[in-house]
Amino acid sequence: METKTILIKDITILNPDLGNVKEFQGSVLIENDKIAKIGNNINESVDKVIDGKGKILMPGLVNTHNHISMNLFRGLADDLELNTWLNDHIWPMESHLNSNYCYIGALLAAVEMIKSGTTTFNDMYFYMGSVAQAIDKAGIRGVLSYGMIDFGDEEKREHEFKENIDLIKDFNNSANGRITCRFGPHSPVTCSKELLERVREEANKYNVGIHIHMNETQKEIKDVVDSTGMRPFEYLNSLNFLSSDVLAAHCVWLSDNEIDILKQKDVQVSHNPCSNMKLASGIAPVSKLLNKGVNVSIGTDGVASNNNLDLFEEMKFASLLQKVNDLNPEVLPSNQVFNMATINGAKALSLDKDIGSIEVGKKADLILLDKKSINMTPDSKISSSNLVYSANGSDVLTTICNGQILMEDKKILCLNEDKVKSLANEAILEMKNL
Amino acid sequence: METKTILIKDITILNPDLGNVKEFQGSVLIENDKIAKIGNNINESVDKVIDGKGKILMPGLVNTHNHISMNLFRGLADDLELNTWLNDHIWPMESHLNSNYCYIGALLAAVEMIKSGTTTFNDMYFYMGSVAQAIDKAGIRGVLSYGMIDFGDEEKREHEFKENIDLIKDFNNSANGRITCRFGPHSPVTCSKELLERVREEANKYNVGIHIHMNETQKEIKDVVDSTGMRPFEYLNSLNFLSSDVLAAHCVWLSDNEIDILKQKDVQVSHNPCSNMKLASGIAPVSKLLNKGVNVSIGTDGVASNNNLDLFEEMKFASLLQKVNDLNPEVLPSNQVFNMATINGAKALSLDKDIGSIEVGKKADLILLDKKSINMTPDSKISSSNLVYSANGSDVLTTICNGQILMEDKKILCLNEDKVKSLANEAILEMKNL
Repeated sequence: METKTILIKDITILNPDLGNVKEFQGSVLIENDKIAKIGNNINESVDKVIDGKGKILMPGLVNTHNHISMNLFRGLADDLELNTWLNDHIWPMESHLNSNYCYIGALLAAVEMIKSGTTTFNDMYFYMGSVAQAIDKAGIRGVLSYGMIDFGDEEKREHEFKENIDLIKDFNNSANGRITCRFGPHSPVTCSKELLERVREEANKYNVGIHIHMNETQKEIKDVVDSTGMRPFEYLNSLNFLSSDVLAAHCVWLSDNEIDILKQKDVQVSHNPCSNMKLASGIAPVSKLLNKGVNVSIGTDGVASNNNLDLFEEMKFASLLQKVNDLNPEVLPSNQVFNMATINGAKALSLDKDIGSIEVGKKADLILLDKKSINMTPDSKISSSNLVYSANGSDVLTTICNGQILMEDKKILCLNEDKVKSLANEAILEMKNL
Repeated sequence: METKTILIKDITILNPDLGNVKEFQGSVLIENDKIAKIGNNINESVDKVIDGKGKILMPGLVNTHNHISMNLFRGLADDLELNTWLNDHIWPMESHLNSNYCYIGALLAAVEMIKSGTTTFNDMYFYMGSVAQAIDKAGIRGVLSYGMIDFGDEEKREHEFKENIDLIKDFNNSANGRITCRFGPHSPVTCSKELLERVREEANKYNVGIHIHMNETQKEIKDVVDSTGMRPFEYLNSLNFLSSDVLAAHCVWLSDNEIDILKQKDVQVSHNPCSNMKLASGIAPVSKLLNKGVNVSIGTDGVASNNNLDLFEEMKFASLLQKVNDLNPEVLPSNQVFNMATINGAKALSLDKDIGSIEVGKKADLILLDKKSINMTPDSKISSSNLVYSANGSDVLTTICNGQILMEDKKILCLNEDKVKSLANEAILEMKNL
């Protein structure tokens, strides 16, 4: 591969820094896929210079829970009781999915993520080979798992392992390392003890992580308690399932004992405020988790329950929801939320050696924002304030992943945005007529 | 005035309709400041044609609680306990305000509102003559009141009435009717009984409405109960203060008896979810109010506690917050929230004969959005879904107020956006150095 160098010059850099956010003026040199230098006097001759004046540079955002092919289902059904929503709308439509529709949905989500500054996402769904192909093409970074469900059926269980293991064999560490894979046992309600125990074994064998839904609704917790006599995290702990390679999405309803288990086992949490609010699941005790030292990151969940992938909006929801829930305006300050959506997300996916902050040697996953946009005017005292409380994804100008410029000055370079949108509109129309 | 005609052709129209939202394809003819025709075969020759293909036309949004000059204070101080925030940050900075700074802050807010699709706002602050001048220039519609505070001091009280009455005399029904005025008694805690009683008399005399903060925090309610033996709405009711011309902002903590009073007296409510969440004030019982038949509209409050004026974002917050608070995903569906931010807002400001929906004879306060933006793809089954749950203010293409195009294809026509931003950045720097 030819050396490709980019110099981002004289820009305001915001970076996670020991639980705080550091702000400084400087330049960043990218060589191939990596950050090669950060400083004030970088004079290398490069292939491309990006003028950073009036702009903010920050790490690309990390979305730690998603089902990106569901982007086709934006606005399909809202404002419904959970079972009606699933039984009458989502599941019937999911029954029409195929690899082509999942590929198109994944492309649509990739465009949305690139436009709104997300460079890494964590996914769990079906037809994941197609998702991998879409992500390879789109240029962003994805952690992919197949959504395994057996409801105790042995034959189904075998099929689920074949699907997830094939995904790992075919795509783990593919696309120049941008794609990694995990096991995706759906939840302790939909997966048998046998499935969960084998996932732990296979994850160790293949040296990959685990992505699972946990403690989203009160009903599912009751179901686990009724069948096992234990709350969900107590149950998984009894199976020796929990470890720092487990990413648990939602974690809305947690007992104190479960929070202790999360801390002891270093389980990684994905907080999904919009989805938990929209489906009326509940409010996760995020400030309590953070105070205990649990690593909490942020995810959007699929657009069917959000209804977008804008992590800037999700940061605001995370902070404001926790403040009003705790009746304490001091919790989840903007710097902490900035970290949740960057370095905490990287750690949650075991990728913090590579991404989540702007450091020499890390991958060049970077986004540039316009300091002169109306949402960023005037400049705030704490720079993360405007980013978390005022900005939205539309303030992102330029998105770089793995050293490749995917969007420049709001123009998507890696995909044909109009074509992707047409394909998506056609796909959902076809599916509705099936 | 020369006849000015605009034809918006072949567009998807979304309109409040008896508590629901009606969607149809059509064209809209604007003559001067008014909507002259709505239909499918409008063939008048006009001064300007706007091609509506691939776009949505809806009423301009109505923001029913704001302090727009505070736009200068975006990101000034966040994540603080209320008294620290006020005493150490907001009040010291407000002491430096003058008419010039308030004028610049108002212009900045006007740019932000125009860009994000708000055509009418309800304001309460200081130096309101300057705000009126800024709004006259900016072209949007404003309902202006002076924030009256006497803390029982008679001399201060006289001053406050002079300020508010001067505002009414100078600016009520000015700017081609775009500016109307109200009395702005700050709250039952900061205003004496004498002030409140006289506000009622003067409002009747000048035939203007009243804009007041009510029941925002538990502490202020305790203060009113301690001093009067009544809860705030009971107290105002005992003064015969309440009527349909009273716009009560916040209404977070309400007893059942107070909700009954709101309904009986047809008091108009402005719900401010972001501000109530960010300041950790609490969660207003909006679904309960709506079920009782109280008219609830939406406001952003000032950016110091939000931190933007994006009513699209505020609609999403309103719906999702209520769903999770009630643990019921069916409350505040997207159509209802769409109405809250349009026709309910117009009614709340006693302007529903003129604005809030697209009707022949009403003022041409209209916004156009891009149906092909990423947030609006694919088209949803219920059109308000994408608007409420996925869009943000950046999806607005064109903003028309009183028949004038204030922004076209994202370009502000009525003001020099860059100049306003520079003035704002300079103003806040100066104030910080005072």
